[in-house]
Amino acid sequence: MSLDFFFNPKSIAVIGASNNKLKLGYEVFKNLKTYEGRVYPVNIRESVVQGVKAYRSVLDVPDEIDLAVIVIPRGYVKQAIIDCCKAGVKGAIVITGGFSETGAEGKRLEEEIVGIAREHGLRIIGPNCVGVMNTSVNLNATFIMSARKGYVAFISQSGALGAGIIYKTVREGIGFSKFVSVGNMADVSIDELIDYLADDEETKAIAVYLEGLRSGRRFIEACRRVYSKKPVIVLKGGVGVYGSRATQSHTGSLAGSPEIYNAAFKQARVIVSRNVTELLSMSRAFTQPRPRGSRVAVITNAGGVGVLVTDELERRGLVLARFSSETINALRRILPPIAAVNNPVDMIASARGREYYLVTKTILRDNSVDAVIVACVVPTFAGMTPTEHAEGVLKAIREARVKKPVIGLFMAGEVSLEARKLLENNGIPVYETPEEAASAIEALCKHSLYREV
Amino acid sequence: MSLDFFFNPKSIAVIGASNNKLKLGYEVFKNLKTYEGRVYPVNIRESVVQGVKAYRSVLDVPDEIDLAVIVIPRGYVKQAIIDCCKAGVKGAIVITGGFSETGAEGKRLEEEIVGIAREHGLRIIGPNCVGVMNTSVNLNATFIMSARKGYVAFISQSGALGAGIIYKTVREGIGFSKFVSVGNMADVSIDELIDYLADDEETKAIAVYLEGLRSGRRFIEACRRVYSKKPVIVLKGGVGVYGSRATQSHTGSLAGSPEIYNAAFKQARVIVSRNVTELLSMSRAFTQPRPRGSRVAVITNAGGVGVLVTDELERRGLVLARFSSETINALRRILPPIAAVNNPVDMIASARGREYYLVTKTILRDNSVDAVIVACVVPTFAGMTPTEHAEGVLKAIREARVKKPVIGLFMAGEVSLEARKLLENNGIPVYETPEEAASAIEALCKHSLYREV
Repeated sequence: MSLDFFFNPKSIAVIGASNNKLKLGYEVFKNLKTYEGRVYPVNIRESVVQGVKAYRSVLDVPDEIDLAVIVIPRGYVKQAIIDCCKAGVKGAIVITGGFSETGAEGKRLEEEIVGIAREHGLRIIGPNCVGVMNTSVNLNATFIMSARKGYVAFISQSGALGAGIIYKTVREGIGFSKFVSVGNMADVSIDELIDYLADDEETKAIAVYLEGLRSGRRFIEACRRVYSKKPVIVLKGGVGVYGSRATQSHTGSLAGSPEIYNAAFKQARVIVSRNVTELLSMSRAFTQPRPRGSRVAVITNAGGVGVLVTDELERRGLVLARFSSETINALRRILPPIAAVNNPVDMIASARGREYYLVTKTILRDNSVDAVIVACVVPTFAGMTPTEHAEGVLKAIREARVKKPVIGLFMAGEVSLEARKLLENNGIPVYETPEEAASAIEALCKHSLYREV
Repeated sequence: MSLDFFFNPKSIAVIGASNNKLKLGYEVFKNLKTYEGRVYPVNIRESVVQGVKAYRSVLDVPDEIDLAVIVIPRGYVKQAIIDCCKAGVKGAIVITGGFSETGAEGKRLEEEIVGIAREHGLRIIGPNCVGVMNTSVNLNATFIMSARKGYVAFISQSGALGAGIIYKTVREGIGFSKFVSVGNMADVSIDELIDYLADDEETKAIAVYLEGLRSGRRFIEACRRVYSKKPVIVLKGGVGVYGSRATQSHTGSLAGSPEIYNAAFKQARVIVSRNVTELLSMSRAFTQPRPRGSRVAVITNAGGVGVLVTDELERRGLVLARFSSETINALRRILPPIAAVNNPVDMIASARGREYYLVTKTILRDNSVDAVIVACVVPTFAGMTPTEHAEGVLKAIREARVKKPVIGLFMAGEVSLEARKLLENNGIPVYETPEEAASAIEALCKHSLYREV
């Protein structure tokens, strides 16, 4: 069954939409006012919410409702779900907390609500969640800031961590296609979301923050099923002794050690990231084609950056491509004598758009190269910005006509924002540290390697 | 011998100061115009540079010159050095490249120049470097953007990597006390700079990007000498097979494998960082007192962040503090029933300034706690910013009256900028990811552990 009504609802009722700025229902309705579909506030007391006519119940709304967002005190949630079922609502996002995460009584109530919903074919995301976003249609069914548009769908088992990552990435200029805070996963599970997102055109990769699963089997099967369509990149919380204790309040974890989890992830053909930074840098790589092997070329205008990228690639089990003699001769003709023409190629600080273009094109065409990292540290010529360098790279990719991943590493803060935007608008992911760029290539190679398993 | 004339010169001559915006000498003089001391342009052809009377030679400047910044074509550098010697200049930063990094001929010229300088007591930083900054007196003797003010002195053996890091940190709000691009290290070496910086009041930690050393022995001795005054945090480039090959163009490396380097670093009581992010996050931690042990407490308003911090601490060999029963009882009284009062403490999303204050104070006073990470994900209450949370933490530190490190982890992008500024202005380093916060504590603990060696 498709979960599309959660992401592209024709109409939404916000049950608990509020005029009170201290309530989450205020933020949720405010965020949804810019949505392209129809949005109705439901409030038991107010007749107008944020300037829009409000209804006492979802049953009073004179429209068919695809999606209800429920953000009312716990004691009223059951009735709201009953109303949604009567009104023929397809999906409900229950933001309200106080259910299975609080103990036996909350668990009982949660099960009762899910039972009612299942009887009537109503699907539920949550409860105890932050909500759902679909940036491609400006849907922000949460109480937090909207994510930027991007190619990564992000499923988070921790709502607050998900929120923190969105606030962080908005500032950094990193975007998402979808965001789902799954909360207690009383009904809709991560495996179902993975199946749905695998067919989503705006999504190139699925990033998951995971603490525990009710059914590891279903998760593994879903990941295997979608493998050829979309990579799944996982950050597992609670891998250590203390960390796993810290997740104890969460229900129904896959029992077992990090070894068991890692074996399961391998079986699932999932790419494992070690931290938040890697989760993001790895997921963002998948706008690029998959490499045929692990032989990486590094092009830089700064020796130190080339050295650090090389160290990071090696640490991650990748190899530096060994260029053909034709490539080396061509690079010698392009570059000044003191440039380094072996991999990593140090074009030195004098390199401009022309060198970035010619060198990148030459290297992309070398059959011994599977993937390319193009690094650019702030150019040292007065007034120059790295935009021409980025243009050179794009021209090289267009003309080389090969299907190989190219990753940008632009270490220049504000000065490189335009260059970065230019590359990313053309689908080239850009990073700011050697370790992030190397992890991006690692993720692409790992995904390819699973093909052979 | 002090190197203070490089960092606090009374007077500076910029040899090669230019009106031509395409020349590095344009940027260097422009950057130095805001310096608090006297700055003179020297240009063989122009009588006025950027609106300031220029001199044909440093010998013509009607003032005693402490520092010369040399940014002219290679062929003229020797004469400029001779002039500096005659003029009694104390230090010269030679930005010009084309010396030992280019081969035998350049090496010979470099040695000749250093020979002349040494005869006359002139010290040289470089050649082939980006220059020097001292942010506390607005000294920017480089051709790049000024770093922000901060507590970390940064020595980089790669000028361009150093530049890239400065551009990146300016955007991120991270600062430095000093920056030195050492270039070919023909004269002034890293060990001398470490000795100088160990006595610098603005510097709390010394961060070094290192590729190879002429004398490993002198480096080790310098680090050991300054250990009780300042920590040295090193990022070593070229640790892998490929990476070490990539550093071959650099002269006189310490021979040997990563194992040899790591043994040397241990002997030197140096803290080893694994990448650029860690170099920065570890160095920034040292505004804090050193912990007595490795028992860390984690306070959070978001469970997922607590889990990830805990995993990262464990991965790095640190332990989660086991609170006393008094602490646990006190936390139970402060926090709502569904909060987690064991370490990591999850105060849940409702926590505000009051809870941050009371919980942090209680935990700081627990004798089983050596260090504290206070995490805050974007508060979920409408309109709230984490500033009150930061204020709570500061009040707790003031009142607890214990000497324990406290590290902030504020994951909220723009929303937490004010909170972050407030904490950092009070000396509390703030990070945006669990892995950075954990690495900060790791660095503090490692530095303490060396005391016992």
